[in-house]
Amino acid sequence: MDKPYYAVIFTSTRKDGNHDYMAMAQFMEKLAKEQPGYLGIESARETIGITVSYWESLEAIAAWKQNAEHLVAQKRGIREWYKDYTVRICLVEREYSWSD
Amino acid sequence: MDKPYYAVIFTSTRKDGNHDYMAMAQFMEKLAKEQPGYLGIESARETIGITVSYWESLEAIAAWKQNAEHLVAQKRGIREWYKDYTVRICLVEREYSWSD
Repeated sequence: MDKPYYAVIFTSTRKDGNHDYMAMAQFMEKLAKEQPGYLGIESARETIGITVSYWESLEAIAAWKQNAEHLVAQKRGIREWYKDYTVRICLVEREYSWSD
Repeated sequence: MDKPYYAVIFTSTRKDGNHDYMAMAQFMEKLAKEQPGYLGIESARETIGITVSYWESLEAIAAWKQNAEHLVAQKRGIREWYKDYTVRICLVEREYSWSD
């Protein structure tokens, strides 16, 4: 990815019970991909969940946070899905990759 | 955590076969916690693995990368465990949490 860009690290612990969580998570991922300034998303969950999304600018991150359907998901997240979460907005300063 | 601090996002895809991967991953996590400037670590693996470690400074990250036992693990990682990986070194600019 071209620098500078931003990473949003979302770490969370889930409550018991599904309540459409998977469907909403998939919908949010699809919706994120359609936003201006979106660069990518990566996700894994074991004891905790970690989702990292990548964005061109702080403005793109702020706009996605305020997206109407995303706001609905955020409210349901607090009410139904998460025990706790942390969001970290980070400037990617350096990046290197290795591939077999 | 007190700002400014840094996040290292390590995303990877594993090869088939274990070859002591879990034991080494646990050892590296224990060793990371003993390094100067270490602030925390979070990890999850499904299709991909995401490990985020948090550090006080770029110097602390550079020292951990060059740690002798960590260098051995990095070499084995390339030879035995990973199909590919990406490391991103990020400045955490903003952070907020919610808890039930």
